[in-house]
Amino acid sequence: MTRKDMIAQILHKQSALCIGLDPELSKLPAHLLSRKNPTLDFCKEIIDSTNDLCVAYKPNLAFFEAQGTRGWDTLVEIVEYIPEQIFKIADAKRGDIGNTSKKYADAFFKQMNFDAVTVAPYMGIDSVTPFLEYDDKWVIVLGLTSNAGSSDFQRLKLEKGGTLYEEVLRKSSEWGSIDNMMFVVGATHAEDFLRVRDILPDHFLLVPGVGAQGGDMDSVFSNGMSKDVGLLINASRSILYASSDENYAELARVEAQKMNEQMVRYIN
Amino acid sequence: MTRKDMIAQILHKQSALCIGLDPELSKLPAHLLSRKNPTLDFCKEIIDSTNDLCVAYKPNLAFFEAQGTRGWDTLVEIVEYIPEQIFKIADAKRGDIGNTSKKYADAFFKQMNFDAVTVAPYMGIDSVTPFLEYDDKWVIVLGLTSNAGSSDFQRLKLEKGGTLYEEVLRKSSEWGSIDNMMFVVGATHAEDFLRVRDILPDHFLLVPGVGAQGGDMDSVFSNGMSKDVGLLINASRSILYASSDENYAELARVEAQKMNEQMVRYIN
Repeated sequence: MTRKDMIAQILHKQSALCIGLDPELSKLPAHLLSRKNPTLDFCKEIIDSTNDLCVAYKPNLAFFEAQGTRGWDTLVEIVEYIPEQIFKIADAKRGDIGNTSKKYADAFFKQMNFDAVTVAPYMGIDSVTPFLEYDDKWVIVLGLTSNAGSSDFQRLKLEKGGTLYEEVLRKSSEWGSIDNMMFVVGATHAEDFLRVRDILPDHFLLVPGVGAQGGDMDSVFSNGMSKDVGLLINASRSILYASSDENYAELARVEAQKMNEQMVRYIN
Repeated sequence: MTRKDMIAQILHKQSALCIGLDPELSKLPAHLLSRKNPTLDFCKEIIDSTNDLCVAYKPNLAFFEAQGTRGWDTLVEIVEYIPEQIFKIADAKRGDIGNTSKKYADAFFKQMNFDAVTVAPYMGIDSVTPFLEYDDKWVIVLGLTSNAGSSDFQRLKLEKGGTLYEEVLRKSSEWGSIDNMMFVVGATHAEDFLRVRDILPDHFLLVPGVGAQGGDMDSVFSNGMSKDVGLLINASRSILYASSDENYAELARVEAQKMNEQMVRYIN
């Protein structure tokens, strides 16, 4: 997907919502557990119920890998099931030496039809650039993550000034362009979006942490929006597990609508 | 596997060799390509031919994921095929927020019987500790990697002194112990092993980069050995692709023997 198509989709749907697919067997509605493949049915029904309300889905690889080969098979089916015009992010946090990152790119962009992969920056340039060799595919580099451990290394102060995460944003943004790179910036650090936008005024940011992790939508939009919106706001658990009853897909839709209501005045 | 068993195995075999399994279809001997599953046969024959000469195998997940569901299935079979007393490393470079790292740990330690997983440290404590909740399982944190991009961030100087990779070694070593944590330190930085051993005198180090990437065995042992050896020396391509003919497994064995000959005087 091109940047232009992404922006058009956000404006058309009046939504920058990305729904994270983290299907956990122990949290699925009980009535699904007797199905042949509860995870697949769960994700498909969530997609059916919400795809007009979001611009991206983000399957979290760990939740599929934890089910072994069958989980990988389920992932393949889900990626095929997501409507074509919706952006598909493999939340995989990959990254390795060049010849290996190239294989991960093959896995997500050739074997499966993902539009983007999340990548950890620790190994530097040759761990990131192999993902950029595909037209209209994206790499989403971890910048400032939403978890408690993000302060362990990401906020370390550098001798030359600034922090590690700022240097990661600055340096790795040179490896691609606003047309094929995004960055993860967690909503739990809303005050830092001003700093992020100083460094990256135009890049899209993938923003986890609104919802179950406690981030605040208004602060994210006030501080983090670019002139083209420039945000994908992710929610996973708050939508997927809005209900554990048979009405779960319907209530997931209600949650997605609530999030869009918080975004619409900024997108307008 | 316990640390004690690992050390006993190294002394018994007089080898600290870890063989990386990076099976690439385009590099496999031509006579295998007509087989039902060339990758599986290739890896099994490499294992048959070398398992008395090494103490660990390290399947590289990317090379399996690039083959889709079938690749994942092949990986499962290979992990089961590796003899029980040999250390099995999932070279996966995973790491995510706590609930997600927990799922990756399930994938590698419950769904499959790996002994260790490589983890990228960028996301901090909660991305690493879920892997430490399994008895006799290990996390191998990226410290100083062997690739060109390792200088992009890992060597950044910190305001408080030292470099990022040193801080990663120091801080993350506090999250576990020498019984369940190792660190990746690339052989291409042999001069840095002295500094690494100042910080981590007793931890095992997984050392890629000897062989195809040009690292020097003598410098690694001279500078990096601990009192319990404390090194796992990885080689992948130089062993796997020693020959592209029908004798490939035999020549892989010869390469493994050459590496052991370079190690034996240090292990003695």
